[in-house]
Amino acid sequence: MSTFNVELKKVVDDSYEIEIGFGLEEKLISDIKDGLVGNISKFAVITDSIVKDLYAVDILNKLKKSGYYAELFVFEAGETSKTRKTKELLEDAMLSKGYRRDCCIVAVGGGVVTDLAGFVAGTYGRGVPFINYATTVLAAADAAVGGKTAVDTPLATNLIGMFNQPEKVYLDIAAWKTLPARQISSGLAETIKHSCIASKSLFDYLDEHMNEILGIDKKACEYIANENCRIKYEVVMKDEKESGLREVLNLGHTVGRAIETVSNYRLLHGEAVSIGLTAEVKLAYKLGYVTEEQRNSVVSLLKKACLPTDIPDYIDREELVKKLYTDKKVRNGQLRFVIQNGIGDVVEFKDGVFAVEIEEKTAREIIYDM
Amino acid sequence: MSTFNVELKKVVDDSYEIEIGFGLEEKLISDIKDGLVGNISKFAVITDSIVKDLYAVDILNKLKKSGYYAELFVFEAGETSKTRKTKELLEDAMLSKGYRRDCCIVAVGGGVVTDLAGFVAGTYGRGVPFINYATTVLAAADAAVGGKTAVDTPLATNLIGMFNQPEKVYLDIAAWKTLPARQISSGLAETIKHSCIASKSLFDYLDEHMNEILGIDKKACEYIANENCRIKYEVVMKDEKESGLREVLNLGHTVGRAIETVSNYRLLHGEAVSIGLTAEVKLAYKLGYVTEEQRNSVVSLLKKACLPTDIPDYIDREELVKKLYTDKKVRNGQLRFVIQNGIGDVVEFKDGVFAVEIEEKTAREIIYDM
Repeated sequence: MSTFNVELKKVVDDSYEIEIGFGLEEKLISDIKDGLVGNISKFAVITDSIVKDLYAVDILNKLKKSGYYAELFVFEAGETSKTRKTKELLEDAMLSKGYRRDCCIVAVGGGVVTDLAGFVAGTYGRGVPFINYATTVLAAADAAVGGKTAVDTPLATNLIGMFNQPEKVYLDIAAWKTLPARQISSGLAETIKHSCIASKSLFDYLDEHMNEILGIDKKACEYIANENCRIKYEVVMKDEKESGLREVLNLGHTVGRAIETVSNYRLLHGEAVSIGLTAEVKLAYKLGYVTEEQRNSVVSLLKKACLPTDIPDYIDREELVKKLYTDKKVRNGQLRFVIQNGIGDVVEFKDGVFAVEIEEKTAREIIYDM
Repeated sequence: MSTFNVELKKVVDDSYEIEIGFGLEEKLISDIKDGLVGNISKFAVITDSIVKDLYAVDILNKLKKSGYYAELFVFEAGETSKTRKTKELLEDAMLSKGYRRDCCIVAVGGGVVTDLAGFVAGTYGRGVPFINYATTVLAAADAAVGGKTAVDTPLATNLIGMFNQPEKVYLDIAAWKTLPARQISSGLAETIKHSCIASKSLFDYLDEHMNEILGIDKKACEYIANENCRIKYEVVMKDEKESGLREVLNLGHTVGRAIETVSNYRLLHGEAVSIGLTAEVKLAYKLGYVTEEQRNSVVSLLKKACLPTDIPDYIDREELVKKLYTDKKVRNGQLRFVIQNGIGDVVEFKDGVFAVEIEEKTAREIIYDM
């Protein structure tokens, strides 16, 4: 018996820049010309059926006009496309167009596009660089920072995926104007979540400026986009691999993700998260971590953003309780929740532990009460 | 327009140990008890239909007897199982058994098992730890060092995957005794490749001790297992992401991989590589980098290992030439080959560049001549 040691210790620099602004297509092209992804000359633009004509074709044409080889890869818009099957179809389409390892993926769209394209990039040729051009409020809050990519499976959402950092992220706020009102509201759920976790001042800002935000006022939207990045970055940077602190970003998601699945994606992600945030602030109230007034102001802000705060009648409560167990935070078969501590803070239960075991009975009571 | 910088620079330590010996099941269990994967108590043992009864059930039972939760996940043996579909079936089986992120995958088997299970581990819950218990000669030479995991697709072999380092690798030489002779020979192709790339003394050792090795002599096999690790490690360590130096490991694989695919896996990987090594040493001879004597001694050693050195009649030569273009080394539509420099060295064409563009005509001539 003998042993052989493989020493693989190294410094990894996954740093990247997030550009926030109004209409960033030209900036993307000039960054690529300036060497954003080295001397790569082949680009695969991945988008969905809605964003395609709005922004992706434009970016594709700009790339071609600049002398790059570029092709468009389009999948059907919607969370139900975030599957291993779509990933496979994109891979096969790229392979058949001759894309090898010397290419770069440009994801143009919302969270589904960036999640999926980032995952494709992570395993294509064992990893090719990718750029996120985010066109939705949700992607600005959720997908810009963190490097989380994933697909859904029949048995769980976001459980198959990887951490993969982009070369750069563009948050094009001008693109928010083409979003349906329902999508804008849905996207704001993550921003409200961020404020609940980490910033009373952002919470107050949202409360005061919700109308401007819903009307895509440039200044207000840039402010919240920046705040989203800052808060998520502070959490993610301290815990890139989601061992402890990063779990705080899961506030509202234990119930939210479960509702999203049980609704069979009738609810948008942010709508489900909004109901999840409501359920979980009620849990925090029940456990004595938020006052009645704080609880009410969270619910009131969600409503101001035109988000649902009740579990729809068509949701089978028992199926929902059962679905909670597919949550990533489950340990040894026990449900675990992140609990907000007033507004702008979360409870740290032990050193570095931000999720606490909750009896199924307690979770069931809250769910049946909504 | 404003920018936000996400700083993600950090030290990553992916170091691990390779244990080489005869019968390492008990060592695996004691390592786990000693904290090899921290306090993880759930194990998913992934294996194939052949290795299952030979070793995997034994390891499963030992895990259970030690108080761990463990389940077996079995797929049909063979390279044709190394697909996205099998990955999906394994994931769904693990999800349905309630495996979340707090588990560890134990891969028990040859290269197909370790490639596939390592890839499953890399994307399950965005990454869970895994251990490789390698039972074949090929896995000892190929899969122990490098962290390469992948699946095949209809359009290309090994192009969808990721770099993912195991927690530990066990090379159980005792298990080689249950391999069919054809598998042992196939496994030796990678060892012969390593000797051609980097070690004239290993080449000479193989030439002198081939009979003992084919008879699974403990001392001779431990020696070559160690040499394989050492050579591959020296190459991989200097270039973990396969940008330049690591391409030398592709010797014999440009033609080999293509033959393997065109044969529709009638040829084992090592058999295809053996034919590939023959083709490529002939190319090296043609280009003046090896002498006639060196060329003949490479072919002779491959034959001594009972490996094929001719392209079978059933292989369509033109299809083979076309298939060469699916190779990962292809750049801008040009075929690129690693060229051996005598025995025990490769040609460095430019600083850090170990693959050279070869005209299709030249490649075709060699292929049609075999």
